[in-house]
Amino acid sequence: MKHKFSHFTCSLCGTDYGPEEVTYTCPKDGGNLDVILNYDEIKKQYSADKFMDVPEASLWRYRALLPVEDPGGYGTPLHRAGWTPVYKPTRLAKKLGLNDLWVKDESPNPTASFKDRASAIVVARAIQIGAEVTVAASTGNAGAALAGMAAAAGTQAVIFAPKTAPPAKIAQLIVFGAKVLLVDGNYDQAFDLSIQATEAFGWYNRNTGFNPFTAEGKKTAGFEIWEQVVRNQPKNSKPLTVFIPVGDGNIISGVHKGFKDLFALGWMAQMPRIIGVQSEGSAAIANTFARGDEDIQPVQATTLADSISVDLPRDGVRAVRAARETGGVYLTVPDEMILAAIAELGQVGIFAEPAASTAYAGLVKAVNEGIVTTDDPVLVLSTGSGLKDVKAAMQAVSAAPIIEPTLDAVKKVLG
Amino acid sequence: MKHKFSHFTCSLCGTDYGPEEVTYTCPKDGGNLDVILNYDEIKKQYSADKFMDVPEASLWRYRALLPVEDPGGYGTPLHRAGWTPVYKPTRLAKKLGLNDLWVKDESPNPTASFKDRASAIVVARAIQIGAEVTVAASTGNAGAALAGMAAAAGTQAVIFAPKTAPPAKIAQLIVFGAKVLLVDGNYDQAFDLSIQATEAFGWYNRNTGFNPFTAEGKKTAGFEIWEQVVRNQPKNSKPLTVFIPVGDGNIISGVHKGFKDLFALGWMAQMPRIIGVQSEGSAAIANTFARGDEDIQPVQATTLADSISVDLPRDGVRAVRAARETGGVYLTVPDEMILAAIAELGQVGIFAEPAASTAYAGLVKAVNEGIVTTDDPVLVLSTGSGLKDVKAAMQAVSAAPIIEPTLDAVKKVLG
Repeated sequence: MKHKFSHFTCSLCGTDYGPEEVTYTCPKDGGNLDVILNYDEIKKQYSADKFMDVPEASLWRYRALLPVEDPGGYGTPLHRAGWTPVYKPTRLAKKLGLNDLWVKDESPNPTASFKDRASAIVVARAIQIGAEVTVAASTGNAGAALAGMAAAAGTQAVIFAPKTAPPAKIAQLIVFGAKVLLVDGNYDQAFDLSIQATEAFGWYNRNTGFNPFTAEGKKTAGFEIWEQVVRNQPKNSKPLTVFIPVGDGNIISGVHKGFKDLFALGWMAQMPRIIGVQSEGSAAIANTFARGDEDIQPVQATTLADSISVDLPRDGVRAVRAARETGGVYLTVPDEMILAAIAELGQVGIFAEPAASTAYAGLVKAVNEGIVTTDDPVLVLSTGSGLKDVKAAMQAVSAAPIIEPTLDAVKKVLG
Repeated sequence: MKHKFSHFTCSLCGTDYGPEEVTYTCPKDGGNLDVILNYDEIKKQYSADKFMDVPEASLWRYRALLPVEDPGGYGTPLHRAGWTPVYKPTRLAKKLGLNDLWVKDESPNPTASFKDRASAIVVARAIQIGAEVTVAASTGNAGAALAGMAAAAGTQAVIFAPKTAPPAKIAQLIVFGAKVLLVDGNYDQAFDLSIQATEAFGWYNRNTGFNPFTAEGKKTAGFEIWEQVVRNQPKNSKPLTVFIPVGDGNIISGVHKGFKDLFALGWMAQMPRIIGVQSEGSAAIANTFARGDEDIQPVQATTLADSISVDLPRDGVRAVRAARETGGVYLTVPDEMILAAIAELGQVGIFAEPAASTAYAGLVKAVNEGIVTTDDPVLVLSTGSGLKDVKAAMQAVSAAPIIEPTLDAVKKVLG
């Protein structure tokens, strides 16, 4: 089997493993594995100006920097994941007193969230190693993304979900043809059962903070931020500050990995500053950052932003480092600020789910606290569509007035 | 005021009107107005191979063929409407016995439906004629699209909705900053009140089958079908057969208008065959087609596909002609086939709302009835995201099994 990467390195103990030596986490300490590319080989063939073999409006434009073979599936949603728009909402920038503000909106992804990036790469890896079934424990965006990408690729997905999962979210998985098993237990039991079944049946497991290739998919957002924004900035510009919502820590780790790859290749001169934003009610990683160590302690998560509601983050250590190593910081925001951020983004035509608007809420706080100032170029990562959680949107806005069907009533209510 | 089009022509009586002579429908008979471009002028400056001034991944790539000025708003969702993907689901093609099948998926639009195309052009027109407020009666995709595009452009939208509208749909409009007025009456009363308010306050009204520019936005899907599919077909190919879901008739009229523009310019040699698909429970236009006349009689619409549930289609005559003039036909399908189509499209990673899957249901019927055969190239227009109506998705699939959290239980349920 040929591999498009050099080796794995454990993010905790630093042990290196060959591409076929391990599959998920470090056998010694359970640490998340970093995928290390053949940087010298890549530099010989590609450059910052010539990194694409074929122009493509998806994350596969970066296939030179991906550790998997292109899985084929041209003309399917698998080749539509990624390459999402970066908006420049000037009215919000003005309100916040910023010269340059971008919002990267992940809603146009095939299943309407950032998670398609990870699932596309995991499905590609599954195809490459000959695994016929890909499995995950999830009730949310990750499950939908795996089901959707597997359907696009024509492979089978199995999703384990606690039986208490909302029927609406389950329906989407089944529409995509995934086999869904509702586990009579909690999320952790569903997670554990997915691992057992993976081992028993030779399936390939996508679980976040476990499979090293999810971060390799998520890093493509870092590549896009580079291509769409960083590369076009004036030479003397301050580094870009990137706000990322954080739950289990895998998105921020993935984006950081993308920046690190570009830095290792010498294609990006200045590392962006990464700011992680958590809900106050689900702040395990922010707590660790604040303490100044790498000890991730579980919390009892309570936030309406369900996509980042996490008791024990499974990619916490790398997530802490993403901010610490880039001169960034962690911020926490209350749910009220998350709801307010939904309405703020809506004013410029971006409809975000609560987890996605959390990053913007963090920016508001950062501006108030002077963490970013006028000449800091800022990018906010909005990770998923508001259509994923319309109930939250209902909490974010006031009710509309009811009027009699007369022009007088219209005049009265409009003042 | 300079206008980018020649004149309006009434689709019923054929009367021509200058660009500033009328605003909405024909003053004589209330007929929908066609916008007639300056075809000779366009031909002098552009060609089928050189129709873009600036490459752009949105419907604004066709600005040479649009009757409005580019409204600006670069870097906002307004410049992200349109240019949606065309998928080639080979497994579905095989199942249906077709050589070439494409599905054009409108989900990646900024508000996740086809309606963003119309709203982008209407908002541009409003800006051009100096209208500060754009208004519509809608509880569905058209209202969301107007609210979203107006927000992106920084203009005000007002939406009239019956007070019985689902709160979740209303919430999205308010998130986008639209003023929503819940009318204590039915949809028709909301519609009438929107017209009264438009006249009283000098607003600009987007209502479908009323404002002539909605079809001008929707025609861009016809341009894209040409650019993405028709133009690349072999010379001796049979004409493309396009399946379009039909409610009030404005989408099919719009796509037809796009094809007619290209035909008038001599850029498209062969007109595609257009097949309109309606729900059996909302088939006013199909009834007219079957009778062979142009008399649109209202029905009492009852279908789960709410986006195409229409008692009296307001763009029915042009919709009948779209099929009649292109060698097409109208088909009706029961709700069960619409639900089955959601599951079929899901199997290849496309999540469609019921109205969107109706087009695919029509294709299934057309194959069964021999209306399309193996060597007919076929395109299905999937008009909106399944996230718009997750309840319907729940009806489309069987419930998932509940299992004990043990490996034995997994084995048992998987057989």
